[in-house]
Amino acid sequence: MTTIPDSHRDLIEGTHTAALVTVGADGRPQTTAVWYLWADERLQVSITTDRQKYRNLAARPGVGFFVLDPDDPWRSLEIRGDASITPDPEQELVVAIVEKHGGDPTDYLRPEDERVIVTIHPTRVVVHG
Amino acid sequence: MTTIPDSHRDLIEGTHTAALVTVGADGRPQTTAVWYLWADERLQVSITTDRQKYRNLAARPGVGFFVLDPDDPWRSLEIRGDASITPDPEQELVVAIVEKHGGDPTDYLRPEDERVIVTIHPTRVVVHG
Repeated sequence: MTTIPDSHRDLIEGTHTAALVTVGADGRPQTTAVWYLWADERLQVSITTDRQKYRNLAARPGVGFFVLDPDDPWRSLEIRGDASITPDPEQELVVAIVEKHGGDPTDYLRPEDERVIVTIHPTRVVVHG
Repeated sequence: MTTIPDSHRDLIEGTHTAALVTVGADGRPQTTAVWYLWADERLQVSITTDRQKYRNLAARPGVGFFVLDPDDPWRSLEIRGDASITPDPEQELVVAIVEKHGGDPTDYLRPEDERVIVTIHPTRVVVHG
């Protein structure tokens, strides 16, 4: 399965925080909390190029994305896939993500940031609960 | 940092559900929800040997462990490390874990299961919030 089943779309369509997993040069996973945008069946995360997860994904595109239902820890959505990275010089994705969460994008925009868009291309989707 | 700071011990000492991350043969992370036991500064998870995460860890010991505070998604605890695997023929660890969560271990014990103890040896601990 490489699409999100209807039964678990709420986990990706809402404003939950997800865990994004990359793999380090030492083969160990790195996991961080992320917001994301899910639109037109496309899953995207905004990251800055000074972060370890950027360096990991640039070298090793294998990526994990995991949402645990905070109200029911037996429910979860896991996406395994490959990441592609594209520039976001206008920082448009982070604006869209922050607005989705009801935040003020100006709190997150720093002119010195070099932001990229990480698009997650699913190779496997696993749901529980 | 390879120890859990006092500020985030509640995330590992409680009954939160964690995300356990292993790395597949294809280099992509696999993430699953797990219960665990944290006692005497030692972090352990019980898994059965018929699961992909067992095969992943047996081949590639790099492991990730991630707890997101369900009441505050800005707070998280990440442990990166290496897993060691030891047999658990009496299934003692799963009994201890289920009892910690107030469950009935007999609901989880299947005689045909071959269970092992995964002990996570931290190489890096990262907290946020």
